[in-house]
Amino acid sequence: MTYTLVLLRHGESDWNARNLFTGWVDVPLSEKGVEEAKRGGQMLVDAGVRPDIVHTSLLRRAITTANLALDVADLHWLPVKRSWRLNERHYGALQGKNKKEIREEYGDEQFMLWRRSYDVPPPAIEPGSEYSQDTDPRYAGEPIPDSECLKDVLDRALPYWESDIVPDLRAGKGVLVAAHGNSLRAIIKHLDNIDDETIAGLNVPTGIPLLYELDDELRPTTPGGRYLDPEAAEAAIKAVANQGK
Amino acid sequence: MTYTLVLLRHGESDWNARNLFTGWVDVPLSEKGVEEAKRGGQMLVDAGVRPDIVHTSLLRRAITTANLALDVADLHWLPVKRSWRLNERHYGALQGKNKKEIREEYGDEQFMLWRRSYDVPPPAIEPGSEYSQDTDPRYAGEPIPDSECLKDVLDRALPYWESDIVPDLRAGKGVLVAAHGNSLRAIIKHLDNIDDETIAGLNVPTGIPLLYELDDELRPTTPGGRYLDPEAAEAAIKAVANQGK
Repeated sequence: MTYTLVLLRHGESDWNARNLFTGWVDVPLSEKGVEEAKRGGQMLVDAGVRPDIVHTSLLRRAITTANLALDVADLHWLPVKRSWRLNERHYGALQGKNKKEIREEYGDEQFMLWRRSYDVPPPAIEPGSEYSQDTDPRYAGEPIPDSECLKDVLDRALPYWESDIVPDLRAGKGVLVAAHGNSLRAIIKHLDNIDDETIAGLNVPTGIPLLYELDDELRPTTPGGRYLDPEAAEAAIKAVANQGK
Repeated sequence: MTYTLVLLRHGESDWNARNLFTGWVDVPLSEKGVEEAKRGGQMLVDAGVRPDIVHTSLLRRAITTANLALDVADLHWLPVKRSWRLNERHYGALQGKNKKEIREEYGDEQFMLWRRSYDVPPPAIEPGSEYSQDTDPRYAGEPIPDSECLKDVLDRALPYWESDIVPDLRAGKGVLVAAHGNSLRAIIKHLDNIDDETIAGLNVPTGIPLLYELDDELRPTTPGGRYLDPEAAEAAIKAVANQGK
């Protein structure tokens, strides 16, 4: 018995395209992102991968990506669950700022620390900021963050993994998780048991389904899983690594 | 204490536009239907109506309508439940046939009997038909029909109303139901206690949210509810009544 898990990072967003820190700001997909999402759905079809249920974050770029990909795959009717615990890393006060400008202002070292250190969060978002979630009804009553490092993302994503995703897998359902670079890195770190330094170098490309087969102990039968378009994944990973340069 | 229910019929589909009996055939929205869905979302915004959860059928035209309307209303993140019990009436052997041609072939009386009688279903769909659901995974294990009259739709929709929609309402959630002409007529017949003859004359226009406030016994405080754009609703209802002519 193996379990099937598919991880899908949303297609390019308007703010990816403009090289801004996005985090929890709820921006739409760019036109390129819409095409990536549809292409991701076609990759599911071509690979014969048919999930039984989808989990998404509460952010539009992941939700739209799931909607578009599943429609292409004739799986628009799948049951859906959503949680803020699958949201992108909260980038705190950096949200809405240009990555290149932040790099120039604070220097390479601080920039890379904020972007890629495991346990150093950026400065907290200011109360009343236009990007604050203080009055957003989708987060009402939830213990949401005001800034996060990757470790923080693991700490809030893994409870959802255990409470909602694992039971679906154990029930024999193929699970699609449509989410974000850092919430997916958190899941991958957990699945592949990646150490705190090595995870810094791991990037997840947009719009390319990453297929894991998991054994009875929910360990990947192939470490790192398998991208449904390995060549496109490799090219995209290189491009992500160049962001902010 | 009142409960809030919003009924939304999907926007025009490709087959509405071509005047074909659609039923359970899973056709997409037309371009006009996409615009109707977005406009429906804007009507929610303009009226300040903010549901807390959405229920859809398993058919693409209702699912896409919900996705598009909720995205415009900044409610894309709402929890979703889906059920075949909210599907359109199954039109049996008429699915895929042109309404005008069926009317000419069988005459006005038989045509109106199939379209509008409460308890006479069309002939059953033939096994192996290109429009059959026999091997469709979304219906696996479900007691699905091979043809339905409106009474049949009530008989399979009301159990879902009681088991899934009423509990959401009783929990104080505003509920949006994105579905179809006949599954919504079934719910309306139940809510407004409409008799079997009168329901024949009731049409639900596409893409215009119909708002019900329900009292403690889940009876409408205003019989028939209130369309968020009453003038557009009236014009659309007249147009629907002319279909097949």
